[in-house]
Amino acid sequence: MTSAPGKRSPSDQKITDLLYLCHEHAKRGVGFDEVFALISSRYEQIVSELSLSVPIKALLDEIRTRIQGGESADYCASRGEFLHGHILAAWLGYEFVDPADMVRFDQRGVFLPEETNSKVAERLAKYERSVVSGFYGSKPDGSIKTFSRGGSDITGAIVARAVGAHIYENWSDVSGMLMADPRVVKNPKPIAMITYRELRELAYMGATVLHDEAIFPVREIGIPVNIRNTNEPAAPGTLIVRDADRERIPQAGHITGVAGRKGFSIIAIEKTLMNSELGFGRRLLTVLESNGVSFEHLPSGIDTLCVVVNSAVLEGKVDKLVNEIKLECRPDQIDVEHGIALIATVGRGMMHTPGMAAKVMTALSNAKVNIRMIDQGSGELNIIVGVREPDFERAVNAIYSAFVS
Amino acid sequence: MTSAPGKRSPSDQKITDLLYLCHEHAKRGVGFDEVFALISSRYEQIVSELSLSVPIKALLDEIRTRIQGGESADYCASRGEFLHGHILAAWLGYEFVDPADMVRFDQRGVFLPEETNSKVAERLAKYERSVVSGFYGSKPDGSIKTFSRGGSDITGAIVARAVGAHIYENWSDVSGMLMADPRVVKNPKPIAMITYRELRELAYMGATVLHDEAIFPVREIGIPVNIRNTNEPAAPGTLIVRDADRERIPQAGHITGVAGRKGFSIIAIEKTLMNSELGFGRRLLTVLESNGVSFEHLPSGIDTLCVVVNSAVLEGKVDKLVNEIKLECRPDQIDVEHGIALIATVGRGMMHTPGMAAKVMTALSNAKVNIRMIDQGSGELNIIVGVREPDFERAVNAIYSAFVS
Repeated sequence: MTSAPGKRSPSDQKITDLLYLCHEHAKRGVGFDEVFALISSRYEQIVSELSLSVPIKALLDEIRTRIQGGESADYCASRGEFLHGHILAAWLGYEFVDPADMVRFDQRGVFLPEETNSKVAERLAKYERSVVSGFYGSKPDGSIKTFSRGGSDITGAIVARAVGAHIYENWSDVSGMLMADPRVVKNPKPIAMITYRELRELAYMGATVLHDEAIFPVREIGIPVNIRNTNEPAAPGTLIVRDADRERIPQAGHITGVAGRKGFSIIAIEKTLMNSELGFGRRLLTVLESNGVSFEHLPSGIDTLCVVVNSAVLEGKVDKLVNEIKLECRPDQIDVEHGIALIATVGRGMMHTPGMAAKVMTALSNAKVNIRMIDQGSGELNIIVGVREPDFERAVNAIYSAFVS
Repeated sequence: MTSAPGKRSPSDQKITDLLYLCHEHAKRGVGFDEVFALISSRYEQIVSELSLSVPIKALLDEIRTRIQGGESADYCASRGEFLHGHILAAWLGYEFVDPADMVRFDQRGVFLPEETNSKVAERLAKYERSVVSGFYGSKPDGSIKTFSRGGSDITGAIVARAVGAHIYENWSDVSGMLMADPRVVKNPKPIAMITYRELRELAYMGATVLHDEAIFPVREIGIPVNIRNTNEPAAPGTLIVRDADRERIPQAGHITGVAGRKGFSIIAIEKTLMNSELGFGRRLLTVLESNGVSFEHLPSGIDTLCVVVNSAVLEGKVDKLVNEIKLECRPDQIDVEHGIALIATVGRGMMHTPGMAAKVMTALSNAKVNIRMIDQGSGELNIIVGVREPDFERAVNAIYSAFVS
C-alpha cells in the first residue's frame, strides 16, 4: 500500500496539491498544461532515474484527458497514489493492484467495509506480492471516491485485515509516536507500545498521532499496528495493540505518554449542602445543554461543583449562562476562570498502581505549579490535572521528566 | 448558658432521660413517683452539698404537678436545663434567666431569630451577670419548645449575638475539635483554629464536631466560637472563625483536619467520545434523579464518567438504575463498585499551595493504598480521594502522619 510522493524539500509542491490545481483550472475551463507539465516531469524523472518499465506517458496522458473531461476532485486527488503505486510495483517487481476495483463505497460515499473486505481478500489471493495504492476506492457507478481523513492509513488497515496479516506495518516519515509533544518537551522518547484506548486518550488531549479512526479495520479484529519510519528503517517504531492485551504487557509504574491542551475554562459553583439537594447537578447540566455547551469534566468538592468546558464553546455565552445557572441552581457563589490548560498523564501502567498520582503531583509541586483541578475516575488509565495556561509547558515537562529518565 | 447534668458515671442515668420517662408514665396514666424520686434526690443532693439557697423542693413540686397534668414531652425534656440553670446561678451569685420568656418560636415550632434577638438583648441588658438555661424557648401560647438538635449550643450562640459578645465560648467535655477521628488515628492533635467552611466540610465527611447549624446565630455576624473543655480549663480549645478571616490566618502547607466515611459506591460509565456528546451527562443525572439518587462526586476521565453515590441510597435500585442508564446513555460499558470510602483532607492552607496534593498522594502511595478516585475542584479547601474500605484506616493515618509530626 502506497501514498503519493510528498515534498522533497519545503519549496517543493506536493503532487496532490498540483493535481487539485489542474482540477480547479479544468472546472473553470482554463488550460492547465503548465501545471500538468510539473507533474509529468516529476514522474518521468523518477521512472527514468530508476529505469523502470512503467508506461508513464500513457498513464499521464489518460489522466490529463480525464481531468480535461471534467473528472471529479476525488479522481484528481487520487492520481498521485495511483501513479506512485505503479512506480513502486515496477521497482519491486510486484503486481500493481488498483484499489478502485475492490475498495467500495456506496453511491452516497459511505465506505462499505464488508464488501470491500471480501473483494480485497479475493483479489489479493491471486498474487504472492502486490502493491495497492492507498487513499481511494470507487462508488457503484465506477467514479473514484477518496477517504476523507488519513486515507492511506485506512487502505493499509483494510488490506491487512483482508489478507489476515499478523501485523500491519504503517511506514511514514516519523519513528512512531512520541511520549510528549516535541514542541513542548525536548527530544521526547518514542512510545514502544500503546493500546488503542491509550491512543484515543492521547489523541483526545491533542497529541498528533495516527488517527484512531484510520485503523478501525484492524483494530476490531486485533491485528497490531506497527508505525515505522522509512528514513530510519532500523528503529522499532511504535506498536499499537488492542486493549485486551494491556493486561499481558506489564508496565506498572510507567506511563505511555503525557499530552495536554490549552483553552479551557472552569465554572466554579458553590452552594451549601449541594450534595443533599436532589437534582442540583441535573439542573446545572440542563442549563449547559440548552446553551449548547458540552462539558469536559465535573470535578467537585464538598459544597462545590466545577464545570470544565472548552473556552471556545463559551464564546459570547458566559453572561447568559451564568445568569441562567443563578436562576436555576441558586448557587451561593459562581465564578468563571479562563486560561486553563488540561494535562492528561496516560498509561495502562497507572491502573491499580499506587504512587502514580503521587509522582504526578510531586513533579508539579517541585516545578511550583499550582493545580487548579484534579480528576481521576475509577479504572482509569489516566490522571487529568488542570493548571493555568502560563504553567502548561513547565507542567508537561515536569511530568515527563518524572517518569522518563 | 447551661445544659442539663449528664452522667456522672456510665451506670448513671441522664436526668433528661429520666424526665422523659416520667412523661411516658404520665401519658399512660401510670404513676412515676419512683422515677421522679431519682431526679429529686439528685438535685436535692447537689443543692445541699453546695449549700445553695435554691427553692429546689418548690421547683421540683411544680414540675411533678405539671407532668402529672399532661405537660408536653418538650416541657419535660427542658426541665433538666431549667433546674441546672437555677443551681448554677445560685452558686455563681448571678441572675437566673428562664429562656421561656425570651427565646421564641412560632406556633408551628419554627424558631424566630429576630424576635428572639431583641427580647434576649432587652432582657439581659438588665443584669451585669446572668445564667440562661439552654435548649428551649416557648411558643406564642406559652408552651415550651425545645431545639431539635444541639440545642444548648444554639442558645449560647443566641445569647452571644444578642449581647454583642466578642467571643462565644462553648464549654463542654472535649478539648475542642480533633484533626482526625480518635477511633482511627491514635491521639490526634486538637485543631487550634478552623473556619466555618472547614467545619462544614469536616462535619460533612463524618467528623464529630460542633454542628454547623448550632452556631448560625453567631456565624452570620462573625463572632468567633471557642470550644473549651470544663475538665481541662487551661487548654485553649478550638477557635472557629468566619471564612472571610481565612486569608489573614496564614496556614500554607498545613491541613486543618482529615475526615472520611465508608459506604460509597462508584458507578463507572465508559463511552467513546462521550465528551463531545451534548447531553450525555444531563441524561445520566436525569436517570439518577428520577430514581431519587443524589450523587456525591462525578470524577471523569477521557471517555469515562464515574458517579460516586452513598451506597445506602442505591439499596435495591442498582439493577433498575443500571438498566435505565444503559437505555438512556447507551454506554460502551457500565460497572458498579461498592465498598468505597471517601477521605477529605481539609484545610484553608491547601488553597493555592503547590505540593499539598503531592503530599496526600505520596502518603497514600507509601502506605500502599490504591486510589480509586481523586477529586479536587478549583478554589477548593480540600482534596477528596476514594479508596477501598479495607484501606480506609491505613489511608487516614497515612495522610494524618504526612501533615502532623
